[in-house]
Parts: sequence; C-alpha cells; structure tokens
Amino acid sequence: MGQSGGPTAVINASVAGIVSEALNHENIEEIYGTLNGVLGILQEDLIDLASESQQQIRALRHTPGAALGTCRYKLKKQQDFERVLEVFKAHNIRYFFYIGGNDSQDTADKISKLAQQQNYELRVIGVPKTIDNDLPNTDHTPGYASAAKYIATTVREIACDNEAMGQGDLVSIIEVMGRSAGWIAAGAALAKRRDHPHDPPHIILLPEIAFNQEKILEDIKRVLKREKYCLIVVAEGLVDSDGNYVAADGATDAFGHATLGGAGDVLADIISSNIPGLKVRVAKPGLMQRCAAHAASKTDSDEAFLAGEAAVEAAIRGETDKMVTILRGDGDQYTAETGLAPLSEVANNVKKLPREWINEDGVSMNFQFVRYIQPLVQGEVAVPYENGAPVFARLEKDRVEKVLPPYEA
Amino acid sequence: MGQSGGPTAVINASVAGIVSEALNHENIEEIYGTLNGVLGILQEDLIDLASESQQQIRALRHTPGAALGTCRYKLKKQQDFERVLEVFKAHNIRYFFYIGGNDSQDTADKISKLAQQQNYELRVIGVPKTIDNDLPNTDHTPGYASAAKYIATTVREIACDNEAMGQGDLVSIIEVMGRSAGWIAAGAALAKRRDHPHDPPHIILLPEIAFNQEKILEDIKRVLKREKYCLIVVAEGLVDSDGNYVAADGATDAFGHATLGGAGDVLADIISSNIPGLKVRVAKPGLMQRCAAHAASKTDSDEAFLAGEAAVEAAIRGETDKMVTILRGDGDQYTAETGLAPLSEVANNVKKLPREWINEDGVSMNFQFVRYIQPLVQGEVAVPYENGAPVFARLEKDRVEKVLPPYEA
Repeated sequence: MGQSGGPTAVINASVAGIVSEALNHENIEEIYGTLNGVLGILQEDLIDLASESQQQIRALRHTPGAALGTCRYKLKKQQDFERVLEVFKAHNIRYFFYIGGNDSQDTADKISKLAQQQNYELRVIGVPKTIDNDLPNTDHTPGYASAAKYIATTVREIACDNEAMGQGDLVSIIEVMGRSAGWIAAGAALAKRRDHPHDPPHIILLPEIAFNQEKILEDIKRVLKREKYCLIVVAEGLVDSDGNYVAADGATDAFGHATLGGAGDVLADIISSNIPGLKVRVAKPGLMQRCAAHAASKTDSDEAFLAGEAAVEAAIRGETDKMVTILRGDGDQYTAETGLAPLSEVANNVKKLPREWINEDGVSMNFQFVRYIQPLVQGEVAVPYENGAPVFARLEKDRVEKVLPPYEA
Repeated sequence: MGQSGGPTAVINASVAGIVSEALNHENIEEIYGTLNGVLGILQEDLIDLASESQQQIRALRHTPGAALGTCRYKLKKQQDFERVLEVFKAHNIRYFFYIGGNDSQDTADKISKLAQQQNYELRVIGVPKTIDNDLPNTDHTPGYASAAKYIATTVREIACDNEAMGQGDLVSIIEVMGRSAGWIAAGAALAKRRDHPHDPPHIILLPEIAFNQEKILEDIKRVLKREKYCLIVVAEGLVDSDGNYVAADGATDAFGHATLGGAGDVLADIISSNIPGLKVRVAKPGLMQRCAAHAASKTDSDEAFLAGEAAVEAAIRGETDKMVTILRGDGDQYTAETGLAPLSEVANNVKKLPREWINEDGVSMNFQFVRYIQPLVQGEVAVPYENGAPVFARLEKDRVEKVLPPYEA
C-alpha cells in the first residue's frame, strides 16, 4: 500500500484499516508499505508493515501526516510504469492499495491497465483521501470532514476573540485551502448555530462564485453596521470574473496546477485600502488545517479506517480497478456504507460544490449543505497526550530487502 | 470586574473565579462586569453578573475570547479617571478587579491612586493575563501555557505532515505572536521529545537574538542535510542587529507600540531567494493561538480560575493596589500558589525570557526552559461539543441601570 498527495488528519487511519483487514486473510503473506508513494516503488523502498507493533498500528488512527510518506511525483514515462510492475513481480505483490486523491487514482488506474496488458495478475483498489472533497462517485472523501471541523472550531474560537475586541471596526479573515472547489470554506458554515444565520462566518468567499470587489465591500459594510466585527472565510482558490486567481503567484506545481498563496492578504489589502479606519486581521492556518488530528472528526476517522478495510475485502473478493466509495444511506438518521467505483471514472474527474447549496447572496451556505456535512463531523477523536503534547505513531519502518538493481528515474 | 487587552484561551476562567469567590462573601452585594474594560466604565455599560446562570459561569472556564468584551483604550485625560470614580461612586463599587497585562495593570494602579487621593474607599486588585508571559513578579501569566501548548501541538502535527512530504527540500515556517519577548516561540520547544534534540522545531527565531541572515541560512542548510524538512518557528517581533523589526509595517497601535505582520512571509522570501529549489510553506495562526480553547492547558485554566478567586480573597482581606501573582513551589513536584505584588511594580515592566535558557546556538531552548514550562501545559480542558463543534458560554448580559448622564470621552 502507498499514500499519495497531501496528507490529511485521518489518512493513516486508512493504512490501519488495510493492515488490520489484511491480517485476516491467510492468502496475504506479507504486508508492505511503499515509502513516498510511487517513488518508493520505483526505488524499491518498501517496508514491512506486518512487523510493526499493534500499538503503533492502532496509534495510526489518530496520527496526522502520512506515516508511509507521500509524494506528488507523477509517473510519466512508460519506463516508470514498467519499473513498477518489475518491482511488484520481484516481491510477488498481487494486491496494490493506493490511498490518494484524483491524481493518485489516475496513477493506480494506469498501473492496473499495464498489469492487465502484461497478464500479471494484480488487484488494484484505490482508497479515497483528500481534504478537498472533490472526488466523484463518493458521497464525501475521508479527510474532508476533519478539515471542515477544524475550520469551524477555529471560526467559533476566533469569533469569541473578535466579539471581545471589535467595535464595529474589525474584519477578521481566515484563509483556507481549496484550489478549485470551496468545500472546506463552505464547511466553516458549521460554526453557525442552527437558526442563527447572523452567526459567523458572516461571509464565505468560494471559488465557485466570481469575486466581485464592490459587492463584497458592501457586504462587509452591512455586516459591520449590525455586528461588532465581520468574520470572513476565504478559499485560496478565489477567482475573479475573468476566471483568474485573485492570489495567483504565477508558478505551477508538478501536475501543472497553478500554485497559490495569499488570498487572505490580498483581500485584507483590498479592504484596508477601500474602507478606511478598519482593523483587519488575517489568519492562515496553512498546513495546520489538514493535519489537526487533535481536533479531528471521529466519524471521519472511523470512515477512513473502514475504507481501508473495505479495500482489502474488495480485492480479496476479486475486485480490481476500483476505488472504495462512501455511500450515504437514505434514512433520516445518517448511515454510511462502502461501495466501489471504477478508477477510470474517478481519475481526474472533479466533484463540484453544488451551486444550489450556496445561498443566493453567494457568501453563505443553505440548509442542504448543512444537512450534508453535519453528520460527517460528529464525534471527537481521543488523542493521547504525554507531558502536555499529543503523542503520535512512529513506525519502525523495517526495510524489505531490495532484490533489483537501482532505478534511475 | 473588567477584562482588558488581547484575550486568551483562559481569561474567562478568571472571571468565573472572581464571580464564584465573590458569591461567598455577603458584604459583596452585587457583582458587576464592565463591558469592554475601562470603556464600559466611562460609558456606564455595566452588566449584572450575579444574575447569569451558574451553567454559563461554569462554561466560562472553557470559553475563549473575553466574555465581558475588552479594549485597548488607554485612559489619558484626568477627566477620564474622574469619570471612572464617578461611576464607581454612583454604583457604590468598592472592589475593582481588572484582568489584563502590563498596560491594564498600569490603568488599575492609576485608578486606585486617584481613589486614595479622593478618600474614596476602593480596593483594586489586578489579575494577570497575557499569552505573552511578560509580566514581572509572577512565575508565569495565565494564558501563556495554553498558547504554548497549542503551538507545540501544531508543531507536532505539522511535523508529521512535513515528514511525509519533505525530500530534504521543504522548509516549513510557523509565525507566532511575541512582539518583545520570545516566550511563545520558545514554548514550541515542548514539541521535542525528551532527549531528542533533533526533533522539530529545528530552528526557533526569538526577538531576544538578533536575526543574522547568513547564519540562519547556514542553519537551514545544515538541518536539510540531516532531515527531510526544516521546521522553523519565528516570533513576529524578530529584530535585526540594529534592533529594527524584520517585519515592521511602519504603523503603531493605540499604545504607541509598532504594529507588525509577516515575519513568516519575510523569512520565506529570504529563504526562497537565497537557497534555490526549496518548497517553503508558511502558517500564520494569528488570533488562533490566543483563543484555541479546544486545545488549552488544564493547568493554565485552573490557575486562571484560582487567580480570580485569590483576587477576591485578597480584596476582602483588605489588600489593594496589588496584582495576584503565581508562585511556584520549591519542590521537585510542581506546585503553585498565589501571591501579591504591588501594581506599581508590575505596571509597564516587562519580564524577559532569560538569555541563559536559550542554547548557545541561539535557535533552541535548553533544559532550564523546558523544566520551567513543562508543568504548565499539563492536562487538557474538556470542552463540550454539540453537533461536532465546541460550545462556548453566552452571557445574558443584563444591563445595570444607568444613573449618570452620558459621558463624552
């Protein structure tokens, strides 16, 4: 198994789920992890997960980051894919579980396709992971709810601070992740109490709604007439009416996506220079929001574990080229079970935040969104503390002996 | 009682302590809070705290922000001080408890002096509060340990993320508060396990140590040879060898202190432009670090409550012009009791981070600091959650009837 892309607060729970379920099946003789996703496969950097202590595997359920290491490396050359299969064959790897987002599921799909071409029996199951919640075919992705819960918690706390400090002259901005979809920013709506539409966040700026400077400045002035402060949550991927990022810095990442930074600071400058006399404060949790295990959702963590288990069960049943999905039950009471979707459908598709879940004002979420997200953030993960700080898993990472010559990527 | 200056995660616990203890004394007939510190006194905006439900007063023990509202207004004119006494006389206020930092204790001192001049019997007791931990005469200030615990927790979590993503090319910066002293930045050292000096944070940049760009760049390169990433905690008040703020923006606040912002971003620019090929990530928790009640220290919260109780006990005993202090016991086991220090000594003095607690490398803390801070962050505050988000106190704020004509400040 491997982990890929940006970590989440619960991605390691999926590793724990895979390991736990794999131990139940005698035809799985060894349980290996690849260090840093596909990079570790190319370099034959494998570790023996079955030799880890049960204690540490259990601790993965509350440990943030990606315990196996992750990567944003994209397999491109045919030679890379050939090498992956060469490594799999050398170690008789017949099941491959890849925990990741869109790009990672695409990689898993391509590996699976090549194995089929070469008649190498390999079952490939993807496990969804991303705080961005943008994978199709699944009700939501593990990692999302914990990020949303953390942001909502932060909004409630900063609101207490702002309420104490503000005199109708304070604007507080929290910049959150979300490059192409506003799922995380929308999640801040959880900070509002039921039937209290004027609770903070007062304004949510989503990538789905083109940034209109005049309108937002009017919105802020209106809030400040009513409240002591105006709390704004802004997604990093905010775009203007021409579709350009408000905070683009001109660079791109390994996948060709534009890199971003500073939507909060840009917004603060716009506000300060257009409405005189305001105090404007910006918080940018950055990586904090995707690794805040100490404030994670129990529901999310449990589902991440479940998704890992379900991946192994599916592979054992003979499934391949699928990603585990999370399906919501129809009843009034929230229930979830796992399903499967073809990797090819998931890969490189994006689930958008439904426009009809955004209120007409363009800066708040309606009851449909709240009904969607509310069950996902229920419960708190019990993180053990020692000497006042949380204690996380540390794997031994016993290396599997290399049997192939080194590979030049 | 009033609250002043920047809120902390536990400042409301001191309000709860004052209310709880005041209820024990029959000669205290009414318990009033002033809204927004001295501003509320000037404007006769007083609330009846005795009429609040016990439930809400108890909930103050885990509620961040400042439930009474706070201010950074500094009483200047003689007329302001006269008005304060006029309001006190109008409501027969004979005990005044002011929860705040240096500037607030100064204000309390001046109010007390004027009352004495006018032979108005008034007992004034300050309650220490500041995440900055810079008040003299007290071992530490309520609020500090919770901020430090939150930053240390964040460092441990971001470290998990960085460890997963870094390939010897990742620099992660967390900018923390601390304008004139590095107490909070130093607190990040709690993230290191005992006897693991190479644990993150790898570099702590303190206002006490002049920023030397060449040295820091060498420090970063050295860490990146050894580790997958370099995690840096930088205090906002970092200064260069000429004593200028690295991130000064040229403005000043109501007390004439220079306002700051962006030490993390400035540092990121310096690193990116001097060491090619690095990924540099900045997190700026901003207000989050002083209101993260969900991650507060139980010891800190309990001591904040205790300081409130002690203030009332002291006033009842006849003490005045004093601030409650926290005194550490001499034994190996941490114990704390409260003491008293003259307001005039506390006001406008600053407790520096001792130079001998900083290692010779200038970027890490030694065992003396760890021994100092370790007991202060013990225990976690149990914050109640409802629908996945923390629930905080909401006071009714029943207004005390005004008896004076309005005041033009």
